[in-house]
Amino acid sequence: MNGAQSLIRTLVDAGVDVCFSNPGTSEMHFVAALDTVPEMRGVLGLSEGVVTGAADGYARIAEKPAATLLHLGPGLGNGLANLHNARRAHTPIVNIIGDHATYHKKYDAPLQSDIKAIAGSLEGWVRSSDSTTNVGADAAAAVAASQDAPGRVATLILPADVSWGDGGVAAAPVPPRGPLAVEESTVKSIAEILRTGEPVALLFGGPATREAGLRAISRIATATGAKPLVETFPARLERGAGLPTFERLGYLAEQATSQLDGAKHVIVAGAKAPVSFFAYPGKPSVLVPEGAQVHTLAELGDDVVGALEALADELAPDTEPVLQQANRPALPSGPLTVQNWVEVIGALLPEGAIISDEANTSGWTLPAATAGAPRHDVLTLTGGAIGQGLPVATGAAVAAPDRPVIALQSDGSALYTISALWTQARENLNVTTVLLNNRAYAILRMELQRVGAEDSGPKANDLLDLSRPDMDFVKIAQGLGVPATRATTAEDLAAQFRRALAEPGPHLIEAAIP
Amino acid sequence: MNGAQSLIRTLVDAGVDVCFSNPGTSEMHFVAALDTVPEMRGVLGLSEGVVTGAADGYARIAEKPAATLLHLGPGLGNGLANLHNARRAHTPIVNIIGDHATYHKKYDAPLQSDIKAIAGSLEGWVRSSDSTTNVGADAAAAVAASQDAPGRVATLILPADVSWGDGGVAAAPVPPRGPLAVEESTVKSIAEILRTGEPVALLFGGPATREAGLRAISRIATATGAKPLVETFPARLERGAGLPTFERLGYLAEQATSQLDGAKHVIVAGAKAPVSFFAYPGKPSVLVPEGAQVHTLAELGDDVVGALEALADELAPDTEPVLQQANRPALPSGPLTVQNWVEVIGALLPEGAIISDEANTSGWTLPAATAGAPRHDVLTLTGGAIGQGLPVATGAAVAAPDRPVIALQSDGSALYTISALWTQARENLNVTTVLLNNRAYAILRMELQRVGAEDSGPKANDLLDLSRPDMDFVKIAQGLGVPATRATTAEDLAAQFRRALAEPGPHLIEAAIP
Repeated sequence: MNGAQSLIRTLVDAGVDVCFSNPGTSEMHFVAALDTVPEMRGVLGLSEGVVTGAADGYARIAEKPAATLLHLGPGLGNGLANLHNARRAHTPIVNIIGDHATYHKKYDAPLQSDIKAIAGSLEGWVRSSDSTTNVGADAAAAVAASQDAPGRVATLILPADVSWGDGGVAAAPVPPRGPLAVEESTVKSIAEILRTGEPVALLFGGPATREAGLRAISRIATATGAKPLVETFPARLERGAGLPTFERLGYLAEQATSQLDGAKHVIVAGAKAPVSFFAYPGKPSVLVPEGAQVHTLAELGDDVVGALEALADELAPDTEPVLQQANRPALPSGPLTVQNWVEVIGALLPEGAIISDEANTSGWTLPAATAGAPRHDVLTLTGGAIGQGLPVATGAAVAAPDRPVIALQSDGSALYTISALWTQARENLNVTTVLLNNRAYAILRMELQRVGAEDSGPKANDLLDLSRPDMDFVKIAQGLGVPATRATTAEDLAAQFRRALAEPGPHLIEAAIP
Repeated sequence: MNGAQSLIRTLVDAGVDVCFSNPGTSEMHFVAALDTVPEMRGVLGLSEGVVTGAADGYARIAEKPAATLLHLGPGLGNGLANLHNARRAHTPIVNIIGDHATYHKKYDAPLQSDIKAIAGSLEGWVRSSDSTTNVGADAAAAVAASQDAPGRVATLILPADVSWGDGGVAAAPVPPRGPLAVEESTVKSIAEILRTGEPVALLFGGPATREAGLRAISRIATATGAKPLVETFPARLERGAGLPTFERLGYLAEQATSQLDGAKHVIVAGAKAPVSFFAYPGKPSVLVPEGAQVHTLAELGDDVVGALEALADELAPDTEPVLQQANRPALPSGPLTVQNWVEVIGALLPEGAIISDEANTSGWTLPAATAGAPRHDVLTLTGGAIGQGLPVATGAAVAAPDRPVIALQSDGSALYTISALWTQARENLNVTTVLLNNRAYAILRMELQRVGAEDSGPKANDLLDLSRPDMDFVKIAQGLGVPATRATTAEDLAAQFRRALAEPGPHLIEAAIP
C-alpha cells in the first residue's frame, strides 16, 4: 500500500473514521486512497474554517477525534481560527496538512510556506512525516497525542511523496495517556477550606461540565454552601431537566466580578483562575477578588471528575444532588425581540438537542430560558474566534445523526464560515439554524463604549453596522441548498422552528431582531 | 493624541489612506480614532480573507499600500491565505493586527495566541509596538518596510494599551528603499549571451510586466530572437491593443516544458528560474531544460525595468517594440461552453478594464481571447491560494473608482471569500463578477489524474464534486446585496455583461459552464 493508504488504514484502526476535507493537488493521493479504506468517510467543506470547526464539533459530541484534510500553509491559515477554538476547548483533532514533496520544498514553489511555524501557534503536537514507511506510525502517534489528556490539536504534515510512495505500513493504535489522578492530600486540603465556612466560589470546567461532574459539584455545593460557577465558555455543557444547573461565569468582567464578589477562596477544577476576556483601561485583568486565595483541586489533564467525586464523598457522603425541574417558558407572541426569541427556543427545544451557541449579544438570556427544557448539550465559543457556530453544528450533526442540532447564530459571526450550510445540505444533516439578524456587530457597539472610546463618530459606527446593504440570509441559505424562511414575530418563529424540527435535513430561519 | 490616533495620522501622512478592516474588541480604539483623522477611509470586510485580499488588489492598482485591521491571531489566520498571495505578488501591505494589552498577555486569555509566529510565516517585516510613544515611528517604519523594493507584507502588532494610551507622536514618513541598480557588467554579459544566436528563453516578472518592461522586452526579442515568457502568475500584467503581448509560462509543467524546449539559456529578470507548481511522481521539479544555463539579469528588488531597458539599448538601439493590433473575437452564439464565454469577454471588454482572474480551469483560453482587446490590467492568483479573486477585485475597485473591474471567478474558489460581494455593494464598487459555475473542483479532477492516482473511486470523485446540492450564485449574490442574473447562452452572457457594465455598482452574472 502507499503512504496515504497506510495513513487512512491506521486512522480507521484507531477509531478515526471521519475526515472533514478541503483538499488540493498535494492531497490527491490521500483523496484517491479514501476508496481503498471503506470505513473512512470523507466530508467536503468549501472552506477550511468549515472543515476545522466541523472537526471540533464532531469530537465534542463523538468523544473521539475526526481527521481534517487541509491544503498546505494557506489551507491551514484559513482553518486556524476554528483550530484556535478547538485548542481552547481541548478538542482532540487529527489535523492533516498536505505539503509539497520533500524534495520539492527547496524550490520555494508558489504555495510553499512555513507550515510548522503556523501550526506551532496551536501549542499542540506537530510532526512532519518524513518517509512512507513511517507515516502509519506517525498517524498512530498523532491520534494518541490528540487524545492524551486533556486533548489537543495534533498536526500531521504529509508531504506529497510520502503520501504517494509505496511501502506504507499501517500501525496499531497507540493508547492515549489518560488523566492523572489527583492526590488524596489535595482533596483533603480543599475539603478543609470548604469546611471553614468562609465564602467559596467553585469554578469548574473541562470534563466537569458533564453529568458526573455536575452531580458531584451539586453535592459539594449543597453540603458546604460553596458557589459553583461554570467556566465562561465550556466546550460541552450538559443541561436541562434532571441535571444540576449552575450559572456560567459572565463574559463581561463586571458580571464576573459581581458573581465572585465576597469570595474568600476561589477553588478551580478543570478551569483556569478567572481573568478578563479582554483588558479595559483602568480595570483589572485578574477577576479574583482582592484578598481571595486561589486553590487548585484539579488541573486540566488531571482526573477532574474523579477529584470532584472524591471531594463530594469526603464532604457530602449522604447528600443528593439538586436537580433541575422540568420547566419551560410559555410561548410568547408579538414581534420578535432580543428577549422573546429565546423563550420560543426554551418552549420548543426537543429532547436530546445539541445547541451550537454563537448567538452572542442576542443570546444573553438563553441559559435562563432553556434551563428547564429537556436535557441537551450546549457547545460554546471556547476561543472567542467568531465563525465557529455553523461549522461546529455541522460536525456535531455528523457525530450524532439521531439527535436534533440547533445552531443559534448571530449575523455578524455567520459570514466567516457561511458555506457550512452547503455541507449540511450535502450530508443531509439534521441542523436547524436560527440566524439572529440584528444587522450589526452589536457586541462591538457595546465594546466601543466599554473600552472608553465614547467619543466615536460616524466612521467608527459605520464599521460596526451590517446594514447598507441588509443581508438576506434566506436567499443566501437557499443559494447554498438549505431551505430557509424568515420570522418577524414570535408566532412565526415558533411555527417555523416546529416545522424545521419535524422535517429531516437542514433548515435555516432568519429571525429579525431589532 | 492617543496611540491609535498617532498611528492613523502617521499612515495618512505616509500616503496610506485606506484601511480594510474586520475589527474586534482589541481594535476599538483604532476604530474610534478613524473619526479624528478625516483622510483615512475605513472599508469593512465581513471576513479577514476579504480584508487582506482587498488590500492586495488595492496596492496592485494604486501602487501604494493600504492598511488592514485584523483581530488577534485568529483574525490573522483567517487572512493568511490572501496575505500569502500578496507575499508572492510582492504587494506592499501595512498589516495591522490588534493584540491584547501588553500587561494582559501573561494571563493567556482565550484569544491569546502567538501572532508573531503566524505572521513570521509571511517572511516579510514584523514588529510589535511596545509603547504609545513609539507607535507612530513604528507605523512609519512599517509603511517604508512594506514598500522597500520589491515590496512585502509589513505586520505591525498593536497591543490595546499601546493603542489607547496617551502620548502618541505622529511620525514623518520614512522613504522606502528603492530598487538596486543592476551593474553595467551584468547587462553586458547577458547581452553577450543573446548575441551568440543560441536559443534563449527570457522569463520575466515583477515590475517588468508593465508597459515599460514589455516594450524593452519586445525590442530585445525582436533584435535577438529570444523567446519572451511572462512568469506564470504575474501580480499585474498590462495587456491589450497597443502593448507588446507575450505568452505566460504555463501552469502545467508539461506546458512549461514545451514552451522552454530547446532553450540553451534561460535569462531571468524579476522572476525565479522556472520550477513546477507542484511535484508529480517521476517528473522533474525544475523546468529548465537539461543542459540549459540560467542567467540572472535582475533579481526582484533590483531595478528590473532599468536593466531591461539598458539591455534593449545595448542590443536593439534602433528597434521599435512590436505592438498588439486591436482585434476582438466575434460575439459567439449558442449554449455557453468553456470556449465561448471567453470570446464574449474578449468581444466586450471595456477600455481600461481591470481583470481579477480566478477563472482557473474555465479560463485557459482567456489570454488569447483578450489579447487584442482594449488596453487592460490582469491581476492573477500569485500564490496559488484560492479565494483571492473577489477580494482582489474589491480592492482594485477601491483604488480605481473610474475603471471597470471584471472579476472572472470559478465556483470552487468563490466560497472562501464570497462575502466580498457585500463589501462591493456597501461601497458601491463598479465590479462585474462573471461566476463560472461548472459545479466541480475541475482543476482537482485534472490533478487527480496528473498525480497518477488514476484508480480513484466514487468517494474520491465525490470530494471534487460541487453539485449535490448545486449552488445558486444568483441567490447568494442577491442575499449579499449584489444584483445578479444567470446566463446559459452566449447571447445571455453578452446582454447581461453589457448591462452590468453600463450600470454603476456591482453585479454578478452566473455563467453555467458544462
